[in-house]
Amino acid sequence: MTIGIFGTGRFGRFWATALAQHARVITYSRTPREAPDGCVAGSLADIGACDAVMLCVAISAVDDALHALVPHLGSRVTVMDTCSVKVEPTEAMMRIVPEHNPVIGTHPMFGPDSAPNGVGGLPFVYTPMRGPVEIVERFRGFFGGIGLRVIDMSADEHDRAAAMTQGVTHLLGRLLADMGVEASPIATVGYRKLLEVVEQTCNDPYQLFVDLQQRNPYTRQMRERLLESLSRLMAALSDDLTAE
Amino acid sequence: MTIGIFGTGRFGRFWATALAQHARVITYSRTPREAPDGCVAGSLADIGACDAVMLCVAISAVDDALHALVPHLGSRVTVMDTCSVKVEPTEAMMRIVPEHNPVIGTHPMFGPDSAPNGVGGLPFVYTPMRGPVEIVERFRGFFGGIGLRVIDMSADEHDRAAAMTQGVTHLLGRLLADMGVEASPIATVGYRKLLEVVEQTCNDPYQLFVDLQQRNPYTRQMRERLLESLSRLMAALSDDLTAE
Repeated sequence: MTIGIFGTGRFGRFWATALAQHARVITYSRTPREAPDGCVAGSLADIGACDAVMLCVAISAVDDALHALVPHLGSRVTVMDTCSVKVEPTEAMMRIVPEHNPVIGTHPMFGPDSAPNGVGGLPFVYTPMRGPVEIVERFRGFFGGIGLRVIDMSADEHDRAAAMTQGVTHLLGRLLADMGVEASPIATVGYRKLLEVVEQTCNDPYQLFVDLQQRNPYTRQMRERLLESLSRLMAALSDDLTAE
Repeated sequence: MTIGIFGTGRFGRFWATALAQHARVITYSRTPREAPDGCVAGSLADIGACDAVMLCVAISAVDDALHALVPHLGSRVTVMDTCSVKVEPTEAMMRIVPEHNPVIGTHPMFGPDSAPNGVGGLPFVYTPMRGPVEIVERFRGFFGGIGLRVIDMSADEHDRAAAMTQGVTHLLGRLLADMGVEASPIATVGYRKLLEVVEQTCNDPYQLFVDLQQRNPYTRQMRERLLESLSRLMAALSDDLTAE
């Protein structure tokens, strides 16, 4: 198994290193950078000749990455993304990648902060879009074989569920950071968990936060729901105040 | 050491049982209930004859509890509260408890959900208000001796710090519960931490949430800060949206 990784930002480096324990990994980035541990740096032609190319770029950069990749892509190479939303990038792959290339959406639901000790048992969303069943099964088997908990989901199902899980988490992490929360000698167990959420979400690029909130079709509803709930709580507190 | 516990609600039962491993504990509640594990149920006169009485009642019930206790209180008995805010209950104790009784505010920064395996190493805020230094030292030594991390703090310092730690935590826990968050197969590590915060905060009585938000003089500022930060984030997202 050879895997090409397009993009060696924070997540790309982490993911390439994790995969390199189980496959030959070639990495490409638009600005030349040292290859991550266990990987070999290569050109677009090098990654385009692997069994699969996995895009590890910002959601908002998927179109450009695909246009750059396609001229160098072997005719049987499977193309996958790893984005935190699924509807938009899978549509982009279906539109831009030639019809004879298999296309699979994936979402590794972890990163360098949440999986410092390895990816075993962590959820990995798997969204096959097109291609021969044996290719779809081969990669499903590969990801399951390296210990990931592979979860089959449509792009729409994923985005609905992710808006109310990862979407909420990143919104509250950024909210708490903006409020200036910090370590305290009187921190309760619950408060310490919130600080961990802040650390994890704010270590990720700000662009990921923006993309999660804007490019998932269901996060706007989540934010509306959050505002409604907050108004309800605030109103209840004021009622109690005036009732005293 | 004998300690009287006034109030055997969720926290009172937990706290009485924890103390009963190190002292003789007598519990009193206005509605007669079975004594918690290791404790003996008694009357107001019984708890009023202990070395100390610790109030384990809702912040909003402190005044009534003190008025009920005082007629039965021995002249050297130390009175302490355990409330999650400190300015208001310590003022109430100073006003209602006779001058010859020592008064100490305390805030055990944990409960049955956050300390299921014992209270060792957990923060315990200690706010001596009046009384002989040897009494203040005796109880500080007792709480430290049972493994608590005793933190000396004025009532005002405590409330400032608690608004931005425990106050935020309970507000977000209730907010997430109101939004209807739930377990998900694609839960990330960070999201799972948020679910734990919901569970811990929403297991506590709703009255604790209301009292934390209304009877701490600094939680209103915290909520204003939260709304400001949320508006700032939402505005940034809309700008990005229209800029596309």
